[in-house]
Amino acid sequence: MKPAFTIGVDYGTNSVRAVVVDCADGRVLGTSVFDYPSGDHGVLLDPRDPHLARQNPGDYLLGLDASISGAVEEAERQPDFERARVVGIGVDTTGSTPLPVDEDCQPLALYPRLHGELAAYAWLWKDHTAAEEAAAITETARRHAPEYLAPIGGTYSSEWFWSKIWRCLRVAPAIFERAVSWVELADYIPAVLAGTKDPKAVMRCVCAAGHKAMYSDAWQGLPSKAFLARLDPKLADLRDRLYDRAYPADRPAGRLVKAWADTLGLPQGIPIAMGGFDAHYGAVGAGVRTGTLVKIIGTSTCDCAIAPTGGDVRNVPGICGIVNGSIMPGYYGIEAGQSAVGDILRWWVERVCQGRDELHAELSAEAARFAPGASGLMALDWNNGNRTILVDPKLTGLVLGQTLHTTRAEIYRALIEATAYGARAIVERMVEYGVPVERVVCCGGIAEKNDLFMQIYADVLGQPMLVAGSPQTPALGAAISAAVAAGEAAGGHATFEAAQAKMTSMKDTRFEPNAAAHAVYDELYGVYRELHDAFGGVAGAGGDLGTLMKRLLGIRERAG
Amino acid sequence: MKPAFTIGVDYGTNSVRAVVVDCADGRVLGTSVFDYPSGDHGVLLDPRDPHLARQNPGDYLLGLDASISGAVEEAERQPDFERARVVGIGVDTTGSTPLPVDEDCQPLALYPRLHGELAAYAWLWKDHTAAEEAAAITETARRHAPEYLAPIGGTYSSEWFWSKIWRCLRVAPAIFERAVSWVELADYIPAVLAGTKDPKAVMRCVCAAGHKAMYSDAWQGLPSKAFLARLDPKLADLRDRLYDRAYPADRPAGRLVKAWADTLGLPQGIPIAMGGFDAHYGAVGAGVRTGTLVKIIGTSTCDCAIAPTGGDVRNVPGICGIVNGSIMPGYYGIEAGQSAVGDILRWWVERVCQGRDELHAELSAEAARFAPGASGLMALDWNNGNRTILVDPKLTGLVLGQTLHTTRAEIYRALIEATAYGARAIVERMVEYGVPVERVVCCGGIAEKNDLFMQIYADVLGQPMLVAGSPQTPALGAAISAAVAAGEAAGGHATFEAAQAKMTSMKDTRFEPNAAAHAVYDELYGVYRELHDAFGGVAGAGGDLGTLMKRLLGIRERAG
Repeated sequence: MKPAFTIGVDYGTNSVRAVVVDCADGRVLGTSVFDYPSGDHGVLLDPRDPHLARQNPGDYLLGLDASISGAVEEAERQPDFERARVVGIGVDTTGSTPLPVDEDCQPLALYPRLHGELAAYAWLWKDHTAAEEAAAITETARRHAPEYLAPIGGTYSSEWFWSKIWRCLRVAPAIFERAVSWVELADYIPAVLAGTKDPKAVMRCVCAAGHKAMYSDAWQGLPSKAFLARLDPKLADLRDRLYDRAYPADRPAGRLVKAWADTLGLPQGIPIAMGGFDAHYGAVGAGVRTGTLVKIIGTSTCDCAIAPTGGDVRNVPGICGIVNGSIMPGYYGIEAGQSAVGDILRWWVERVCQGRDELHAELSAEAARFAPGASGLMALDWNNGNRTILVDPKLTGLVLGQTLHTTRAEIYRALIEATAYGARAIVERMVEYGVPVERVVCCGGIAEKNDLFMQIYADVLGQPMLVAGSPQTPALGAAISAAVAAGEAAGGHATFEAAQAKMTSMKDTRFEPNAAAHAVYDELYGVYRELHDAFGGVAGAGGDLGTLMKRLLGIRERAG
Repeated sequence: MKPAFTIGVDYGTNSVRAVVVDCADGRVLGTSVFDYPSGDHGVLLDPRDPHLARQNPGDYLLGLDASISGAVEEAERQPDFERARVVGIGVDTTGSTPLPVDEDCQPLALYPRLHGELAAYAWLWKDHTAAEEAAAITETARRHAPEYLAPIGGTYSSEWFWSKIWRCLRVAPAIFERAVSWVELADYIPAVLAGTKDPKAVMRCVCAAGHKAMYSDAWQGLPSKAFLARLDPKLADLRDRLYDRAYPADRPAGRLVKAWADTLGLPQGIPIAMGGFDAHYGAVGAGVRTGTLVKIIGTSTCDCAIAPTGGDVRNVPGICGIVNGSIMPGYYGIEAGQSAVGDILRWWVERVCQGRDELHAELSAEAARFAPGASGLMALDWNNGNRTILVDPKLTGLVLGQTLHTTRAEIYRALIEATAYGARAIVERMVEYGVPVERVVCCGGIAEKNDLFMQIYADVLGQPMLVAGSPQTPALGAAISAAVAAGEAAGGHATFEAAQAKMTSMKDTRFEPNAAAHAVYDELYGVYRELHDAFGGVAGAGGDLGTLMKRLLGIRERAG
């Protein structure tokens, strides 16, 4: 059989990366990264509002051409590559990153006269301007439609689809009125490649719909008009212009349109896989399967697992989402996360210790010399709130147990340990609600570079920690989805499972738990949970301490 | 009237300082500091036991000559000074710093054949080897003689007289057997100058006896033989060889003996004031009087107040001590303290931020720009345990409220604020039990150098913070005591109050509370007390959190 190649395109926060992958073995033949030219490393900011984070859709289009062209050109230097043997393209993006579009599915931000209207741009996942709207959606759903919250952990986030659109309606009504529809970035890019011009015809992935827009087969689609009308009647009207169905990646989003085929020099009509979130396709590229938890460890962490749809998985309180088909077709996709992991360590190194990147290695080396528990320290990993279990963005950090001899390396270790306890709390919650976790696969720079971090996680979780073979699992996962969309006959694969078997791998390094360390960490984890429950406001724990961090923030707001 | 001068000699942890002072106005004519030559900056350490801290009595004797001689030589450069017009000498020292002596009141450590026997040396105040003994004394007293604990806050410390002597008996019985008696450093130095050779004849100050040795007029002296026999019958035997009475500074400890008069070139027979602790004489030198709290702010803090003996002062739970006559004759002397203040800031600057001395000023300048409450941070000042209120050396530090943006200057400020909340807790406790606190006078380098620190204290306490005029209040207080011992006829003063009126002063700088800041700090102090009570194990607060820090230390011990 002739070789076949697919392209995975990964839209991150600061850049877009394309890879050309061999469907036979997952080998990467070409890679290219395009840094978004707009704003601060691709993010449009508002000096008056630190919560605002937008992106320029023009950057997405420039980057689509540049990254794919670059990756294909690099692949052409390999003797066995031919452009004609590219059999599909897959796309993953950040999310929820919705953008308002016109009747031709053109982003409003591309209109010259709307230049500078930040509400017309893409509302980047980490835009937190819609905190009020999120709280009101949560409150309304709790009262009138609690079923909407059950699959998404019980709390609707300011980062998500409806919060942002409602925010736009409230602060930039002219933009809201001008928008015929709103499209998630994960659906927009495949639609561009497929030449889809009608917003209603855009294939919507269940990944964005189910995790961020309260979409479910259980209530035939998006939230009811009656519910949306409680928020604002105009949102109820918008519902008609959005979509009725969303799909897992068991079908393509479309086929490569002639214009883009010409631009990219790739075969017209090859399948464009259904879009998906970076974390979800990252899990695919890391070899997610039943019993495997994939941890994508970066500034924050995304934890992905799947479970058979026929199994006994229930909605898990405090877990961001359980959606049928969201990570891989035929499974529940389960997504959780920690709101800061790498960011906490970077905070300590850069902001407190005023060090540079090298200091991570130095502090890790020093911290590796201590036995578990030897510092007497305990920390809570909440410097950026708590995303999973407590689902409370207003919680803050805590370090306890300092003496006059406590070193910065000991605190660095305590912060790593705190994130590991947070990770364990998520695993325990998943297992408690029927999601099996038998092995943990990690991806991301920290997993590849920081052995102390990985060993602590193995010791705290009491499970081996594996490292995904690819350093670019989201792009690889998108390429896998493209290989499945292409199908076996075209040189791709019949199923995700078959594609993963050929195209994914693990690094040789794996971190085994040490029994003695695990025993100490069992005890320390108990202490962590006491603080977690007391300061997290878990009923019956800690009394008034459960509101203490919030009261300090209240004082802070009045003081500021 | 001819001018008259007194000498104050201040035995610190690393050096001894002498000052020559004019009795008319407190002016310092000469100063000399002698650094102890032995050990690590004067402290003998044991690499196997971090709790051990001893001193070489030989250093004390060398330093007595060197410091006084140096100060007098410097004074001689002043036109109005004459050696013949020196009318008295006063001494203050660290404490409890007991040393074992022979039948001639010679320290055992001076015997060449005991060289290197660390138990034979002076047991420095900060020696913590006797933790077990202290706990057993507390336990025994709680059961059989709770009255002994009432005036010393309810807990007997490992730093104190009986703990150390009992420890010596247990770990170095030969030294214990060889000791005819034990003398506090504060009593030993005056005895040396007075030529007192019989341990039973050494004048014992009530300052050391009452605060550290459970001495009280209420039970006619030291603890009963029956009580001591419960600890060890040999301690009961020792009681006979100690002392029956201890005295306030309303009488001299003796008169300058010929040998030392010749050595120092000072008039034979001038009065040697009763010895006292550095903090107590520091309070005298800072102008302590009814309604004035003197805070001696250094690595740790000592808070001293006095109250009329006829008033309604009761024993204050959690306050280190209330002793009739201990700070000034005719008053109750009340002593409290915080186990780390400057030390916590130094820990942050040196150990965590890896900065030098200059960084204190830099962080203070940055921290001064924030409004109270604006950081959202809250800390507990327990990096070295809690000395007053909770009286628990095994408590540890806590910092809470960190975000990813929290800076090291904000944490520096939060640590200052934590010590201020700790200070307020002490003031509130004193006032609650009848000790009036109408003004606060601070001494020490931090008080003189760090305006932010002082302003925060004024704002947290809601009271003006004054700064003592002398940078060496303990030595000045000892010189004042000498002036009172000399008496008015000799050019000294009739009473401590009269001497203070002439010889002490305040700096012009004073820090007034800002009403708006005080209001915010009132609220923050409430939050501090919640954490204080929860983690301090106050009954009814925090449940299991009250033991959490101790459980971490338990894990730490097993891990180490």
